[in-house]
Parts: sequence; structure tokens; C-alpha cells
Amino acid sequence: MKRTFASDNYAGVHPEVMQALLDANQGHAASYGNDDHTTKAIEKFKGLFGDDVEVFFAYNGTAANVLGLSALTRSYNSIICSDLAHINVDESTAPEKFLGCKLITIKTADGKIYPTEIEERIQRVDDQHHPQVKGISISQSTEYGTVYTRKQIEALSAIAKKHNLYLHMDGSRISNACVSLGESFRSFTRDAGVDVLSFGGTKNGMMFGEAIVFFNSATAVDFKFIRKQGMQLHSKMRFISSQFNALLSNDLWKRNAQHSNNMARFLAEELRKFSQVEITQSVDANGVFAKFPPEIIPKLQDEHFFYMWTDKIFEARLMCAFDTTEDEIRNFGNRLRELLR
Amino acid sequence: MKRTFASDNYAGVHPEVMQALLDANQGHAASYGNDDHTTKAIEKFKGLFGDDVEVFFAYNGTAANVLGLSALTRSYNSIICSDLAHINVDESTAPEKFLGCKLITIKTADGKIYPTEIEERIQRVDDQHHPQVKGISISQSTEYGTVYTRKQIEALSAIAKKHNLYLHMDGSRISNACVSLGESFRSFTRDAGVDVLSFGGTKNGMMFGEAIVFFNSATAVDFKFIRKQGMQLHSKMRFISSQFNALLSNDLWKRNAQHSNNMARFLAEELRKFSQVEITQSVDANGVFAKFPPEIIPKLQDEHFFYMWTDKIFEARLMCAFDTTEDEIRNFGNRLRELLR
Amino acid sequence: MKRTFASDNYAGVHPEVMQALLDANQGHAASYGNDDHTTKAIEKFKGLFGDDVEVFFAYNGTAANVLGLSALTRSYNSIICSDLAHINVDESTAPEKFLGCKLITIKTADGKIYPTEIEERIQRVDDQHHPQVKGISISQSTEYGTVYTRKQIEALSAIAKKHNLYLHMDGSRISNACVSLGESFRSFTRDAGVDVLSFGGTKNGMMFGEAIVFFNSATAVDFKFIRKQGMQLHSKMRFISSQFNALLSNDLWKRNAQHSNNMARFLAEELRKFSQVEITQSVDANGVFAKFPPEIIPKLQDEHFFYMWTDKIFEARLMCAFDTTEDEIRNFGNRLRELLR
Amino acid sequence: MKRTFASDNYAGVHPEVMQALLDANQGHAASYGNDDHTTKAIEKFKGLFGDDVEVFFAYNGTAANVLGLSALTRSYNSIICSDLAHINVDESTAPEKFLGCKLITIKTADGKIYPTEIEERIQRVDDQHHPQVKGISISQSTEYGTVYTRKQIEALSAIAKKHNLYLHMDGSRISNACVSLGESFRSFTRDAGVDVLSFGGTKNGMMFGEAIVFFNSATAVDFKFIRKQGMQLHSKMRFISSQFNALLSNDLWKRNAQHSNNMARFLAEELRKFSQVEITQSVDANGVFAKFPPEIIPKLQDEHFFYMWTDKIFEARLMCAFDTTEDEIRNFGNRLRELLR
Repeated sequence: MKRTFASDNYAGVHPEVMQALLDANQGHAASYGNDDHTTKAIEKFKGLFGDDVEVFFAYNGTAANVLGLSALTRSYNSIICSDLAHINVDESTAPEKFLGCKLITIKTADGKIYPTEIEERIQRVDDQHHPQVKGISISQSTEYGTVYTRKQIEALSAIAKKHNLYLHMDGSRISNACVSLGESFRSFTRDAGVDVLSFGGTKNGMMFGEAIVFFNSATAVDFKFIRKQGMQLHSKMRFISSQFNALLSNDLWKRNAQHSNNMARFLAEELRKFSQVEITQSVDANGVFAKFPPEIIPKLQDEHFFYMWTDKIFEARLMCAFDTTEDEIRNFGNRLRELLR
Repeated sequence: MKRTFASDNYAGVHPEVMQALLDANQGHAASYGNDDHTTKAIEKFKGLFGDDVEVFFAYNGTAANVLGLSALTRSYNSIICSDLAHINVDESTAPEKFLGCKLITIKTADGKIYPTEIEERIQRVDDQHHPQVKGISISQSTEYGTVYTRKQIEALSAIAKKHNLYLHMDGSRISNACVSLGESFRSFTRDAGVDVLSFGGTKNGMMFGEAIVFFNSATAVDFKFIRKQGMQLHSKMRFISSQFNALLSNDLWKRNAQHSNNMARFLAEELRKFSQVEITQSVDANGVFAKFPPEIIPKLQDEHFFYMWTDKIFEARLMCAFDTTEDEIRNFGNRLRELLR
Repeated sequence: MKRTFASDNYAGVHPEVMQALLDANQGHAASYGNDDHTTKAIEKFKGLFGDDVEVFFAYNGTAANVLGLSALTRSYNSIICSDLAHINVDESTAPEKFLGCKLITIKTADGKIYPTEIEERIQRVDDQHHPQVKGISISQSTEYGTVYTRKQIEALSAIAKKHNLYLHMDGSRISNACVSLGESFRSFTRDAGVDVLSFGGTKNGMMFGEAIVFFNSATAVDFKFIRKQGMQLHSKMRFISSQFNALLSNDLWKRNAQHSNNMARFLAEELRKFSQVEITQSVDANGVFAKFPPEIIPKLQDEHFFYMWTDKIFEARLMCAFDTTEDEIRNFGNRLRELLR
Repeated sequence: MKRTFASDNYAGVHPEVMQALLDANQGHAASYGNDDHTTKAIEKFKGLFGDDVEVFFAYNGTAANVLGLSALTRSYNSIICSDLAHINVDESTAPEKFLGCKLITIKTADGKIYPTEIEERIQRVDDQHHPQVKGISISQSTEYGTVYTRKQIEALSAIAKKHNLYLHMDGSRISNACVSLGESFRSFTRDAGVDVLSFGGTKNGMMFGEAIVFFNSATAVDFKFIRKQGMQLHSKMRFISSQFNALLSNDLWKRNAQHSNNMARFLAEELRKFSQVEITQSVDANGVFAKFPPEIIPKLQDEHFFYMWTDKIFEARLMCAFDTTEDEIRNFGNRLRELLR
């Protein structure tokens, strides 16, 4: 299939990750994480975030989010997030079913949520009739391709601490955010006050696998049971761990994320050449959101598939992946030029 | 790590499966199963079981079981299984949490459950106070390495139909059962009255991935939602599908299963040479259960690791995998000879 | 304690209901609903709604709502309701925990939700990633003391049918709505297209007890199991049933509701005498919503307690019950006059 | 209806309890437990069990059990109980659905479970694959009408403490146990090491209402949310509290329990006169279990209804209530004599 702008999960597996899978496929290994690859992968995460973090691997991002939040909440709690949050609109009702919690949403214009909006929603504290807010969940980068600054995250975590809430980060595209900010992973997560992080692997060149990173080990104390009950414990764990080992070696995570971010920027530049196209969001990471003239959209999708984001206003989402090429973007520009003539 | 008798999930990925993964890693592919590899894999399953079956892929066996059962039950139901069933003792409380159902267990001597035992447990039908039996779940091959005959399954399914229950099969090792019986997959599943099957991939040479096969499409009508909510929908689905394509091509499933079964039989023969060792179960598939003199167990495990199954009676479980070799078994025999001298 | 405007559940038990409890307390009666009082109570409901309805009793309104919705949904569904709906803000996370479903809320100005608002929220139908809308839940009378007209309900049910949704009515104050509309219970529920109704008893003079009425018996087929599992099956059922028998005899439900509605109207008239007080909602049933000058609120509450509804705008909720008296309202008016002087 | 031996919940409400309901029905009272009756009732429980206990009221015994256990467990836990425990066989799958936990059952001969049986079932501690035992639940008096001695309970609590488990007591008939033992409530509950108690009201003469008593206030810290989410918070709470006030005043609990126990003993004596009738359990509380000649059972039930307990062996359960009379027992004896002639 031709490369598309549909999603970073349309891309395959990066060759270095694939090689790591081949290398890991030697002889027997203890299952369920009691193997050397897993030990090494956990060490790599500790290198990034500190020796005292707790790290667990799961299959996909929905699970990483839901199980991570499960460690932070009881079923009578609520969690504040944006109305576009993946946990709110793209994980079926996994959060409600698995956690029992209610999601309290904030209508977002840029994919982010802000302290005052959050404080307005911390209501009826200690009132037994009402869901009790216990968590704030943000996506980094956001579903709109924007990136929270470290300061913005610190402001959220200050609110969280003030109200005795946990701050959860859905980092399915955290590497894209990291290169966008030009800071260490740690600076805008743990050091900025995040409590639990879903660290994405799949969208950045892995075949499958996400990590749940607990910055406060007390919150992780029974997480192994939660993961197993959540049907997310892989038997042949070395095949998740070795992928993370590849991703976190030789800056592969950074090279992949940098490339996809660069491609998004390049695509945005291309689009800005057209007065009929309006870019609707800041292009901070690897996604471009833009409005196109409605009559050309089907024809554009035909050759370079992408998804519509907000049908009503003809806003499309174009995602770049680690393997997106400048040529494809130029072709897309040419096709656009042709259609707009 | 040295090859062991610990579990068939200590083994890695069969080279033909790995090659399929490499081959599938070309360009972009639509995510969540809308790709050619998935179409092809589903066709292969239809070839095995009939054109009108419904097939879904999930990450692991726990999920395949729990989600498959979820399609058959409501939360006030109960499910009858053996006390050794994986769903009862090795899936944390995923069945209870996700289904809400109670498992009603039958103490098993050989890993199997039988019609009269089941009928005794179908109690208080229509009594609102009591969990209402709705399913029977069996493992094929069983956790004791034994294999139900087609006739035994038909007898169970007759009971199921008589009482308006569903018959679920945990087939995490179904290929081993299939070669053991020398029949087609279909003959002892769909044609014998099974309603839903967890078809195992991981333990037979795949990296990850199991299939849930519904023989009555009406029961699968909303399963895509159940799978997504169950956090088991893989984005880069082609990497599960292509593994199944390899497994179901060129009889790889059969070669792998036949080999591991053969190795188990060879191991059993080796053990039978020792009067101090007692084989406790019929060696129908790829597992051997045997009692060893307690004093030699730690030393035996030291060189050829295996797990104890029933500590009290010094019963061990020795599993053979697709990559177990005759040499290893001979070495094990030699070590045993040495220790028993 | 002095009578207040705090809530209709601050009121006690109507003497005729109490007498029915005394009368029912004769000798033994079969438990769990197999008694004559229950048979008779169900007959009374059938008299109101039709011979083919199914009726179940539960302890309280939260349970009536959650269990009724449970019969209509599976856990991957969502339910549309107003942001002020009792199920959304006053039932902890019972709906999420027990149903697994997400509530999709519509910001309401008058306590009601409207067809176009609902249709906007029926999104991503058949998309496995997204909660699938299956129900609309409305409150009659609403949490804002307003009452849907029969036409409004028919319009909602038309939307429901068009999109294959169920229409659920939280009728914890349905008798107040009924007398307000001046129609039969049936006309604005079953005949207007409602599928399941929570019929309130407690707030209209009962000690405890609500009814769940299914207008389509197919949806109730396993409800007895759902109720028992929901911990809502009363053993000495005659003591719920006999209360309903009293409420539905000699028009007690109507007398109580008419009285509390009249008192609300009388209170509203009293408040309208004060230019500093603004009535914010139509007084259709037994609640009055009004803004008071902030400085007098604590003093007002001191003698005639009521709850604040929207703190920010100093909006209070004043509820009238079957036992509210004109004198109390006049006293409240006098106190108000005194404080505003 | 004639009085029967069917169940203590076939009996009605004791006149003193009914009078308390009448007395409580004066004017308005704050809802949800913020009323004087509730304050007083809680004080009465503190008088029985100590000033630092936490007490909550719920509607019925199933809820008291399930919610109490909910405060002690997380969803990956298991709870050990007898196979006849009410939570195992008479509460639908409320425990599984609401807790997520698995019940691990011990086949009981006398309704009780014993330390060695429990220790055998504490398996695979800290093994993520396996449900982690966290609670022991016993019924006092048991479903077989027997009563644990204080010593037996202490032995169970010693096991619980040793393995870091909680000890839960289903005391739906705790008053019967209390008078049987001739000790204070506290001696065989809190002082014997019980952590949480369901204190039964309904079966001992109340209309509805059970109490959940936490002996360690730390375990109750969020229980108000659990109760509300569990749909068990009564609005007009004074009508549960005032019943408990009556039950715990003037030794009503004791008079009722003593009477029903006496009647059971009297009934047992009557039955012992017949060589064809075999009493199968120790008559410690208010239930008598006896085998009758099968051919006379329907005729016996016809005039003095009772339920069969174990059909296979023609074992019946005959329950006595606070209003059972000696005459009824004599009539039963006469009928029996007549039928056995």
C-alpha cells in the first residue's frame, strides 16, 4: 500500500526494531518478563526517568492509559480530560468499564486543557452523591498535534497537587513531543509533576508495545495484578522489551520522531502556499490539521489518503510517520495544485 | 538461555513466522484490520472452519478466552469449567472482573470435565437469587496435556444444547490437540458442537496473537465493540494476521504441533525407563506430567528447568515446544540417571 | 425538625401509606414478591400502563435508573442525557460502574434536552473505537422543575426510533409531571414512545420504593436477575408493594403531587412579589428555582432551609413536598420581606 | 397468610419496630443520614462495639455483604468462604460483578469453615497470574443454623492476620448467634478479630435495613462513596435508623432472637420424637435441618410450608422467626404424626 497521511499507525516497523526482534529470537527465554531483554529495557527507562521509577509493558495505548489510570483511582472517582482525549473518544468505553470512573471533559480548542478550566470542574468534593475527581489526564503531544510546554504541565501539576489529584499523561506520541520541546523526557514529565505516563512505542516505529511508567513507586505497588487482570501481560515478553531496547538505543526514538515532526513541518509549509487551505492548529509535532475546499477532498484522499477530523468544517488530519518522505509531500502538494487550478 | 521444559511460551518465534513478519513490513497498511494480510488470514480460518464463521484477532490467550466468553454471557451468568482451567487459575480475576460471571468448577483428575459432573452443577435454573449457568468452557488440549476425543466433545455439546448453554473451547494448544486426534480442526470443534473457540497462536510458534472464532455468527454481532473495549484491538493488525498466515500455510501449525507432541512422547518414553519416576497423565499432546523423587528435583531443575505442578505430591509439568530437540531430552534422561544413581 | 424547602425527601411518609404498612403487617407473607400485595400492586401498574407491561420494585431512584438502563444497554454503549441529569451528577459513578457505559451530556438551560442536540451527538455509528449511543435518558419532571410536554417526548422518541435507541425516563417525580400536564401517566410515557420508566414513590410520600416499568416486555426478559445482582431485591417485598398500593389508591399519588405542585406555584407567586428575587425556571412541578441577593441567603436558609443550586449566580432550589403548608410559604415570604427591608 | 417455616423473612415487622417508624414520621428530617435518628442509631452501635467503629446502613443483606467486602478488596483479589455461603449461592453474581473478585469455596459439612481448610487455599501468593486471597467471609449464624464459638472465630482471625487477610462476617442472623453464645456482640466479633460485620436487621423483625460495621475505621474511609455507588444510600434514612433504634432498645433484638432460637429448639425436640425424621445439623440458632420421609414431604409443606435444602437427600430447612408460636410447632408435630401413621 502507498504511504498515506492517514495515521502514524499505518506505518510499519522500523528496520532497527525489526532487527532487534530477529536478534531476540534466540533459544528460550523466561516468559512474562523474567528475561534479560526485559531487565535491560527497564534499565533503559530508568536511565531516562530515574532509578526509582516502576516500568511495565502492555500491548497497546488504550490499555496503557486505562491500566495506568486504574492504579490511580477507585471506581467512584472521576478523571478530567479534554473532550478530544483518546480516552474519551477512541477507546470505546474501556475507561468506564474497567475503571468504573466518569470522565469529565473540557471542550478544547487546541487539544490542551488549562488550570482554570480544571478548577471549575473540581466540584462537590467529599459529596458522596457526586463522582470525586481524582485524576487529570493530558495527551502529549495532543490529539491536535500540539505540545504542552513544560511550564504548562507544571501549572497542571500544581493544580493536581493542590487538590490531591494525580496527573496522568497519555504519551502515545511522547517522542514527538520530546523532540518538539527539545528537552529531556524527564523534564516535562516526572520533573514537571506527572505521576504516571503511557510511553508510546507503536506509533514511533514499533510493531506493538507501550510502557506504563510510574514516577511514584507507591502507586505501582499492585500494578502487576492490574495488568494481568487487564489481559495485558505478554507471555513472550522479550519481544516487547527488545523493541523498546532498539527504540531507546542509538537515539532511534529521536531520529524517528524528529523525522516525522520535520515532515509535518514540511507538509505545513507546502500547504501554506495555498490560500484556499487553512492550517487550523499549531504544527508542534507530527500532525497537520487543515481545512480544504470541500469539493477537492475526495479527490485528494484518493491519491494520498487521510482522515477527516471535523466533517462540518472540512478539517482534515494529516499525520506524518517515521517513514514519510519529502517526495510524497511534494506529490501531495502537486496534486493539490492540480485540483485547485 | 538454554532450552527448558518450563513452558511452550519460553520458546521463541518460528523462522517462517518471523519471515512473514519481515515480509509484511512493506510500506503502509490500513490499521485495525482493514489490510490485505488480515483479509487473507480470515480467509484461511474460513477455509478451516467454514465460510460463515466470524474471526477476530486478539493479543493473548487470556483475552481470547475472556472476550469470547463475554459474547456468550451476561453478568448474572455462570460458566462451568474444570478447577484447573486456565480461566480459573491463571487469568487473575479477569473473567470475574470483565464478565461479572461466576466460574463453577469441577475437580478434574485428567484435565477434562464430563457430562454428569456438569449436569449436577446446573442448579436453580430461573432462580433469580442464583447465578444462571450459561456456558461450559473446556481446554483442548487440557492443562494436563490430555486431549478430549471428538465423542467426548459431542457429549458435552449435547448437554450444552439440552440446557441452552454455550460450549466454549480454550484452544491455546488446539494444534497439539488436532495432530493428536488426527482429525481436522473442524471435526472436533464446530462439527462437534463448539460455539466459540480461542485458537492459539503464541504457544505454537507465533510472537503474539490469538484468534477468537465464532461458529455462529449471531453471537459475534457486536464482538468488535467488545474487543475494542477489552483493549485488544491492535492498530498494526497486519503483524498479527501475517503470523497467522504463516502458521496456516504449508502446514506450519501441524509441523510445529506434531514436533512438540512427538518430543513429549519421546520424553515420556525416556522417563518410563526410571522406576522412580511416575508419569501421572496420559501424554496426548505436548506436556508430560510426572512425579520425581523429591530430593533430586532442585538439581534436575537446575540444568533443565521445569515447573512443579502439584507441590504436595512432587508432580512436575514438562512442556515441549516446536523447538525442543531429542538431544535435550536425552541429556535430561542422562542427568536423571546420574541423579538417581 | 421544621419543614424546609430542602428536598421532597426531607418529608416523611404520608399517613395513608403508613396505614397501608400497618395493614400489610399481618402474619407471614411469601418473600421476594410472591405475595398478594405485590400481585395487587403490579395489577395497579398494569391498570395505569397496560396489561402487557412488566413491573419491578427496587429500593431507590438511583437503582431504578441504573438497573432500568442496564436492561437496555451493553457495556460498550453510551447514553445521552442532560448535564444536570440525576444519573449524571447525583448517582456517584453508579451508571459507569454498573453499566460500563459512558454518559454523553447536553448542557441544558431548562432541564430538558432536545432532538437536534441529541442528533448532533449520535456520532461514529458502528465505529468500534467509539462508544455506541443506545439510549436517551430524560427526567420527568426535570431536575429544574420543568415538565416535558407530550409532544416534546414524542419528538424525542421519534429520534430514538430513527436511530434505534431506547428512550428512558427518570420519573422520580413523575406524579408531579403528570398532574402538571393534566394527562394520564400513559399518555406521556408509553404512548409517547418511552421504553422504560423509573416510577418514583419515595419523593411522593412513600417511605422507600421505586418501580421500574418496562413497556416492551422483551426488554425485561432477564430483569429479575439484573435486579438481584444489583442488590435491589427486597425480601419482605410486601412492604414496598403495599406502599404502592396505597399511593395508587384513592388518587393519593395525585393528591400529593397536586398539593406539592400547588405549593410551588404559591411559593413562586410569593417570590414574584420581590423585585430583588428572580425566578429562573418555569415552575411546572414542585420546585422553584430563584436567585436571591447573596447577603440574605444564609439568614434565609437559617429559618427555612434550602439548598443552593448554582452557587456562582446565587441560584437556589426550593422544593415543595406533599406536606408543605401555605403558612410555611407565607412565613418564608415574611422572612424574606424582613431581610430585604 | 399462615405462618410458615419457610424463612425468617416471611415474618413481618415487630410491633415495636413499627411503632418506631410511626414515631419517626414527624415533620421533616434531613435526608441521607443527617438526622437525629441516624445519629442516635450510630451511637447505639458504638455502645455495642466501641466508640471508634464506623457504621453505615444499607437496604439489604446482599448489599451489606458485597459493599462491606468492597471496602476490603481490590478487583484482583479472592475471598474464601463456604460453598453454602449466602455470598456464594444466594446473591446472584453480585460479588463478582461489583467486586471483580473470585470466591474460593470450601465444601462445608456444618456451615462453618476451618483454619486448615483456609490455609490450603491460600495459594500462589504474589503470583500475578492468580487471584490473590484478601478476605475470609464467614456467616454467623451459618446458613446451616450453626454458630461459631468465639474460639473458632479467633482461630480464623489468627489465620487472617498471619496471611494479611481481612475477616468478614455475614451477620444477617447475628442476633440469633449472639443469644446462642450467651456473650456480648463485641466478644465474638470485634474482640475475636473480625474486621467488618454485616449486622442483620430484616430477619430479626425489621421491615428493611442492615448495618455495615467497620471495626477498623481506616477501612471505612471511603465507604460512603462505595455505598452511594452501590445504590444503597437511602434518602429518608431516618426510617432505617429508627428501626435499628427500636431493635437495639429494651433488648428487642435479644427477645426476638431468643424467641426464634427457643422455637427452633422446641421444634427440634418435637422432631426428635419421630424415628423417621433425622435432624442433620446442630440446632444452635433459629433453623432446624431435618430429613423427612420423601413421600410425606409435599403433604407436610402443604399445611406448614418450608423449603427443601438438599433435594437429593430429602433434607428440609425449617426456620423459626420472632413470631413463631409453640402452637404452630405442635400443629406441625401433629400433622407429622398423622402423616407418619
